[in-house]
Amino acid sequence: MSEAGWDRLWTGVQLATMTDRSLGVIRDGAIASAGGRIAWMGREADLPPEQRRRAAEIIPCGGAWMTPGLIDCHTHIVFGGDRSGDFRRRLHGESYAEIARAGGGILSTVRATRRASNEELLRRTAARGRELGAWGVTTIEIKSGYGLDLETELRMLEVAATLPRLIPADTSPTLLAAHAVPPEYAGRRRDYFRLILDEILPAAREQGHATAIDAFCEDIAFTPAEARAVLEAGIDAGLHGRLHADQLSDLGGGALAAAMGARSADHLEYLSAAGVQAMAAAGVCAVLLPGAAYTLGADRAPPVRALRRAGVTMAVATDANPGSSPITNVGMILNLACIRFGLTPEEALLGFTSAAARVLGLENDRGTLEPGKRADLALWRVGHPVELCYWMGTSPLTSLVKDGVPTGTTVSPPG
Amino acid sequence: MSEAGWDRLWTGVQLATMTDRSLGVIRDGAIASAGGRIAWMGREADLPPEQRRRAAEIIPCGGAWMTPGLIDCHTHIVFGGDRSGDFRRRLHGESYAEIARAGGGILSTVRATRRASNEELLRRTAARGRELGAWGVTTIEIKSGYGLDLETELRMLEVAATLPRLIPADTSPTLLAAHAVPPEYAGRRRDYFRLILDEILPAAREQGHATAIDAFCEDIAFTPAEARAVLEAGIDAGLHGRLHADQLSDLGGGALAAAMGARSADHLEYLSAAGVQAMAAAGVCAVLLPGAAYTLGADRAPPVRALRRAGVTMAVATDANPGSSPITNVGMILNLACIRFGLTPEEALLGFTSAAARVLGLENDRGTLEPGKRADLALWRVGHPVELCYWMGTSPLTSLVKDGVPTGTTVSPPG
Repeated sequence: MSEAGWDRLWTGVQLATMTDRSLGVIRDGAIASAGGRIAWMGREADLPPEQRRRAAEIIPCGGAWMTPGLIDCHTHIVFGGDRSGDFRRRLHGESYAEIARAGGGILSTVRATRRASNEELLRRTAARGRELGAWGVTTIEIKSGYGLDLETELRMLEVAATLPRLIPADTSPTLLAAHAVPPEYAGRRRDYFRLILDEILPAAREQGHATAIDAFCEDIAFTPAEARAVLEAGIDAGLHGRLHADQLSDLGGGALAAAMGARSADHLEYLSAAGVQAMAAAGVCAVLLPGAAYTLGADRAPPVRALRRAGVTMAVATDANPGSSPITNVGMILNLACIRFGLTPEEALLGFTSAAARVLGLENDRGTLEPGKRADLALWRVGHPVELCYWMGTSPLTSLVKDGVPTGTTVSPPG
Repeated sequence: MSEAGWDRLWTGVQLATMTDRSLGVIRDGAIASAGGRIAWMGREADLPPEQRRRAAEIIPCGGAWMTPGLIDCHTHIVFGGDRSGDFRRRLHGESYAEIARAGGGILSTVRATRRASNEELLRRTAARGRELGAWGVTTIEIKSGYGLDLETELRMLEVAATLPRLIPADTSPTLLAAHAVPPEYAGRRRDYFRLILDEILPAAREQGHATAIDAFCEDIAFTPAEARAVLEAGIDAGLHGRLHADQLSDLGGGALAAAMGARSADHLEYLSAAGVQAMAAAGVCAVLLPGAAYTLGADRAPPVRALRRAGVTMAVATDANPGSSPITNVGMILNLACIRFGLTPEEALLGFTSAAARVLGLENDRGTLEPGKRADLALWRVGHPVELCYWMGTSPLTSLVKDGVPTGTTVSPPG
């Protein structure tokens, strides 16, 4: 690609390439795009002068830092209604049972999502996607799971797949029909389970938007045997496997994800030592979701030291959802990953870039700055990328580039 | 004032007046300013038509929520350097002693602050003040305490007092020379103590910027006897008293603040039952600082239930500083106040408005929406003010008004 002219050349930039499990810093760098991909990158001093002249546009960056566009690999941002009422009730001392009786909880989100039109869902999802964009996110995984019926699950996947028409981000839709048992199947969970396998999954495959299958494996949701069957069917159908695993109790979710050849096991506050080893052996990624642990007041953290020692790839994501992680502020999630879970700032940043790409099966396409990768680029007004995890103010994003094109995403200048 | 013409009239607004220890909601309201003060407010249906006609400017708000401009009553935002390096070292497993040996810790901030020019300090403080402004803050208390010598303490107060020339906020400078013993007084703490009393405090009084005196009463800082002497001298000199109290251990700081007639005792993770009673009896406000408790990984929270039961006024503040609370995101602090400390959303919001005004001795001037109060107004794109504590995205501020004048502070739209 470097033989042709370049579409754009960014100069005077500090590159955090996120390669080789480190920030991969290149000081005084430059980076060029052609056809939406990274065509050249390196030290500006090594930039061939004739190539610089053939760049259609040169963007001087004044020493700003650049990372790959961030990847949020676990979100639930398609939903109707909100749960600020639940939040208030809980802080006024009401129990979960009282809140549920008052019409709150996940089923209130299911009701509101079923009621919402596609246009309403898309408009509100786009607002949340723009909040992520203000934090440099250019790829968003989005789960279904607030429909819990054939029509609404497919509508959620449709909204997720349509989002890139409204905001400068790609999406990766995930079928999570196995999120909860819907109210109309109360006492008939096996019937809902059959609905997932016999109707929702085949219809989602025919629809063609979902790239992954996920299940919530927990006492309050689906058993390991049920989760296994859902994942098996999804993976057989060609989807990536994901699993909400070992969040509230140790049900062997990490080992189950490993046995199934899933891409990731997510949450993992109760992951056992055996689960760590199984994940490491099978190359399953850990997706750490500190926003949920924090919001729920969890007293545990995932076994980060053991995961690190075992060489498990650790991604970090917002888990953005109206109940347990009402957070689209990626800086806050990075900060929580460090302070609550004990990740190093470098691990947290890798968790939102190269590791997240691996979770989504996109590691050959994005998540690092390397020639040939997609030119999704985030420019930051910071002295060092560690500051993204450290100072919690307004987003220091100064420019967001999607497929080589500056998006016009701006954030109020911190001065 | 309502007899004269109004400078501005905001219509179609939901008012959260923050009066009477509640949100004090007025639906479908309107509010008018004249001469920088609130001239009229109430239900729009009750607005006298002839008055509406005499408003020089009418601003329709489309149903947005309005609160008083927020008041951050405890910050340390004047400082040089940053501590992201310390943050990184800590997360890589280094101890505080190792970090200090590597040149980190509070004394590194003292060195950087002493080295920084007034212009540099002012520029960087203004950037932090703008981050607070993006969250609706129009009044900022700012402490000295990173100078720890006569010249730099006065320079810090000067920067704090000068800030309103650069950003649309008032400041309330506080002398905190009793923050730490500076390195050149190591082993001679009594000499530094005399320097505070004999030179820094009198000079600060002569300078005229400081409105309050504060001291850090803790094993690692100043003893209760020393703190008492500093507060006594400051209060005798006409300053409000404040105290960093009972943060890391119970030294009876709350009771000391009460005995001294201080305006507030701040932090209070280790406040005793007797301290709660003493504060209640003396009318001392509690200033809760969840950002520091969170960042330091504290395992305790202040005794919020006891404070509530005793009727102690609870303010909430960012404690923004480079070490233990690198946070200017007020939404995150409101959220932490709820989730970490168990405040209700209403208490958290009152903590940043009417309660904070009381801490600063400004309760007759601001902190609520009431006729005669300063027209510092924040407009928010939310369905209810509780959402300010709940959804952590970009700031939903849509307009900030200082002394009746729209400031042009804008935040990237969440869509």
